[in-house]
Amino acid sequence: MNLSLQRVVPAWAWMRDYHRGLLAGDLVAALVVTMMLVPQALAYALLAGLPAHMGLYASILPLVMYALFSSSKTLSVGPVALTSLLTAAVVGKIAAVDSQAYIVAAVVLAMLCGLILLLMGLFRMGFIANFLSHPVVSGFVTASAVLIALSQVGSLVGLPAHGSNAHDILLSLLQNIDSAHSLTLAVGGLVLAFLWWARAAMTRRLVAFGMAPALAALIAKAAPAMALIASTLISYQWQLETKGVAVVGDIPKGLPRLALPSMDPALWSELAISALLIAIIGFVESVSLAKTLAAKRRQRIQPNRELVALGAANISSAMSGGFVVAGGFSRSVVNFDAGAQTQAAGMFAAVGIALVALFFTPALYFLPETTLAATIIIAVSSLIDVGVIVRAWRYSTSDFIAIVATIAATLLLGIEQGVLAGITLSIALHLYKTMQPHIAVVGEVPGTEHFRNVKRHQVITHSNIVSLRIDESLYFANASFLEDRIYELVSQLDGLEHVILQCTAVNEIDLSALDALESINLRLNEQGITLHLSEVKSPVMDALHNSDFLDKLSGSVFLTQHRAVQSLKRDEIEPYII
Amino acid sequence: MNLSLQRVVPAWAWMRDYHRGLLAGDLVAALVVTMMLVPQALAYALLAGLPAHMGLYASILPLVMYALFSSSKTLSVGPVALTSLLTAAVVGKIAAVDSQAYIVAAVVLAMLCGLILLLMGLFRMGFIANFLSHPVVSGFVTASAVLIALSQVGSLVGLPAHGSNAHDILLSLLQNIDSAHSLTLAVGGLVLAFLWWARAAMTRRLVAFGMAPALAALIAKAAPAMALIASTLISYQWQLETKGVAVVGDIPKGLPRLALPSMDPALWSELAISALLIAIIGFVESVSLAKTLAAKRRQRIQPNRELVALGAANISSAMSGGFVVAGGFSRSVVNFDAGAQTQAAGMFAAVGIALVALFFTPALYFLPETTLAATIIIAVSSLIDVGVIVRAWRYSTSDFIAIVATIAATLLLGIEQGVLAGITLSIALHLYKTMQPHIAVVGEVPGTEHFRNVKRHQVITHSNIVSLRIDESLYFANASFLEDRIYELVSQLDGLEHVILQCTAVNEIDLSALDALESINLRLNEQGITLHLSEVKSPVMDALHNSDFLDKLSGSVFLTQHRAVQSLKRDEIEPYII
Repeated sequence: MNLSLQRVVPAWAWMRDYHRGLLAGDLVAALVVTMMLVPQALAYALLAGLPAHMGLYASILPLVMYALFSSSKTLSVGPVALTSLLTAAVVGKIAAVDSQAYIVAAVVLAMLCGLILLLMGLFRMGFIANFLSHPVVSGFVTASAVLIALSQVGSLVGLPAHGSNAHDILLSLLQNIDSAHSLTLAVGGLVLAFLWWARAAMTRRLVAFGMAPALAALIAKAAPAMALIASTLISYQWQLETKGVAVVGDIPKGLPRLALPSMDPALWSELAISALLIAIIGFVESVSLAKTLAAKRRQRIQPNRELVALGAANISSAMSGGFVVAGGFSRSVVNFDAGAQTQAAGMFAAVGIALVALFFTPALYFLPETTLAATIIIAVSSLIDVGVIVRAWRYSTSDFIAIVATIAATLLLGIEQGVLAGITLSIALHLYKTMQPHIAVVGEVPGTEHFRNVKRHQVITHSNIVSLRIDESLYFANASFLEDRIYELVSQLDGLEHVILQCTAVNEIDLSALDALESINLRLNEQGITLHLSEVKSPVMDALHNSDFLDKLSGSVFLTQHRAVQSLKRDEIEPYII
Repeated sequence: MNLSLQRVVPAWAWMRDYHRGLLAGDLVAALVVTMMLVPQALAYALLAGLPAHMGLYASILPLVMYALFSSSKTLSVGPVALTSLLTAAVVGKIAAVDSQAYIVAAVVLAMLCGLILLLMGLFRMGFIANFLSHPVVSGFVTASAVLIALSQVGSLVGLPAHGSNAHDILLSLLQNIDSAHSLTLAVGGLVLAFLWWARAAMTRRLVAFGMAPALAALIAKAAPAMALIASTLISYQWQLETKGVAVVGDIPKGLPRLALPSMDPALWSELAISALLIAIIGFVESVSLAKTLAAKRRQRIQPNRELVALGAANISSAMSGGFVVAGGFSRSVVNFDAGAQTQAAGMFAAVGIALVALFFTPALYFLPETTLAATIIIAVSSLIDVGVIVRAWRYSTSDFIAIVATIAATLLLGIEQGVLAGITLSIALHLYKTMQPHIAVVGEVPGTEHFRNVKRHQVITHSNIVSLRIDESLYFANASFLEDRIYELVSQLDGLEHVILQCTAVNEIDLSALDALESINLRLNEQGITLHLSEVKSPVMDALHNSDFLDKLSGSVFLTQHRAVQSLKRDEIEPYII
């Protein structure tokens, strides 16, 4: 009974075992997360081009649904910068900002993302996320953070700035620079400076004043909430709205009503591809974050359950007037540090947001938008990672190309194009590398049965044998290269009787490569040279047995390269040093 | 002087060395090829939806240009079935058949193909063809042959049939079946039967009558030309045109005039992507054919020079009122068998076609279209290869899936979609296979220094060591799988002190995989387990030296797996038999 209930609602496992000892940690964490989430929720809604209250709506039911289905105990779900910017980019193409159609489309986008994530989870397709390489993800996140920060500069200084790539945003900033509003800039600049200081030095200062380090750290995390309250009070006191400072304005009071999103098939099909991309990006961001946090406490994340939980969260967001949600980086880290023990912390945070939506929205009327812009800029600035570019530069050319291309495409073309370019390029580079496999002439390391590259090691070779180690699986993309390379190598050698292909690194031989091997066998045979294989792995051998290649092969298949050489050698050439 | 001239016009090499001994073979081959090429050129022009004379135009200058630049001595270039059908599919989407716009677009398509091929050749990008796997190519060719044959049934029986996929063509055949023209069917059926017999039995019969086998084979190859002449004479004699048999009709007399194709930028950009696809398909077909023929005489083909030669041929085709050309299968084989020694054979064939265009076009007025349909059906029927499907089924599931999907997509969706689906699917399947690499627990084969899978071989293992052989390069798509799999394996073993990763099959470790290895190292270390590597290839080792991974690694990197185990083992577990 319990087991089957747990299959349907995995939360049953932690709910059943819940006890008072866990409550304190969960409650404190929920309080801190709520204080961070309110400004972020409002800010990311504006970033997505949506009314501020939709940020609150996306932070109530989705948190509850995620808590019911997730395997992560500490991931904090809700609106995040990346998917909000993506929402703006996608929905902005099909509807005008501030129009009802725009809101409808954003809600449908969340619904689609939710359904896609849910289906991917049910069909156990979490592996799709593997196609996003680390360089692509970091390049994409870094470039997106720059784009997001840039897009907020306009709100920060009180001038309009639009565009989905760096060039457009910069251009529109420069064109409107005359209309910058100095009072807005003053408020935003103060908030920005305060938040920067809070992140860099507040904890240290509070500890210096004698506060316990843990408490000091928690208070520093509440800096955005303090900035929100302070700037709202100032804005109210001096009626900044009448002096030209943009404020959030009317926010409907109360909880969202449940409703199905628009079922317009044209809209659904128009958004489907983008929804797939956003779903995968949101999933990758969430799951890598959840994995990092879980690993610190020796807990495990089940990617397919995360897909279901994020799917449920997005569907519930769409059905309660919210937009796309995912796991937020800064909030999750704070949730973890503040001592969240179970998914209950997320549920308590949902209650916190619900209370804000019920009672505090009138107070948010005076909140200056520039405060929210400063909040976003500080939040995303921590995502910019230049170190990984340096690391890639030092480690591998192709990773470096992938990361730079992803950054360039994201900044210059836009956020969707950036991630697509990154994925395509990293797959193409990987295929390109396997297309011209490294083929080494090898000889035996004296005193061992081990064979290494003649160019790198002092090894024993034989004049009538050439041993070739093929450093790649053989498949269609490198089949003809293999053929050309072997003919070229063989044509340079005199007195050759045997070619032995050492297949330690050959994990697969597909039909195209089998055709190439047959041609090689035939052609070498015509020249009086016998072809042998050695150290063929069992799965590859099984496949070869299903063809007639082994009957046609002029030579033999040896268990080890050592045995092959022992039985075929005529003379011995002493090792030489390069 | 000679060398630099040869760089610009590679034909200089064979022209300089040309002597009378080569002339006989080249002339005979040219004569036979001309006799095959006339009906094929006319037929393929009609297949492409173009006026018949464009087939002749595409068979004069392109042959000369190809001969000047190619590395193949025997490939016969000109209109071919596959690219003609592709031309019809692509151009049919943007202009009505029989309109002037259709002709203009077909000429621009040839120009674009030519420029693309030329550029690919100059930038040495012949490797792109490697992405077409053998199963995809054979599946695509087989399905295209079926489509082409189907599309000719209409002309064969004298009823209209249209469509770019099997379903549409069949439907339009069935809808118009009442308008089948019995006299047309009679003529077409007779030609079909004659050509079929000629291919199956004519040589044998002629030899039985005492003719020399080589001559008999040549005469059999001229069967399409005989059918053309005979059916034209019959059509003229009994005025079949007046009885409702469609004939080729007026063909302008004379040689094509040189002219630049349309320079409409909208048209060029509309055709660009399709031109790329057609160029690559034409190139792959031509080069694999040229390679097969060259190998028989121990000659070599230079793919990048073939690109240039095919590019020049297509550009000259476009500039002389022709359409897309490539290397033709049946003609090239005949050219080879008839004894073509050098590219001069192609030039002589061009002269032959020019003579036909100058003097014989009025005679072609009465040629029944049904004869040409029968010629095409017989020509493409030899391209249908069912054997490769059976071979793929027996050998490898993924090759079988690729071939079946390519055939299905080509037949059901159309010829362009088919090849794109095939390429995409074969790349996706390849990546999918490398995504969950085979990781084997290995032990030492007694009496050797060789390690094999404990599940397959009787090997020696040790209780404090687990040796894992990773059967794949480590890159972003399998990095997280590696992590999960190693944790899972390690969690099942007690008393473990060392994990040794045998890296014989690891040809690359990219940045994502390096991150995964660092996590594994850290996490195993926390559990008191040391991580070692063995048999790391030099290129991989070079890369690792450019990171700080080797400093962080808790264990060592061993030259051989044998040495690693020797220095880490505590006890020995005797080999066991499964």
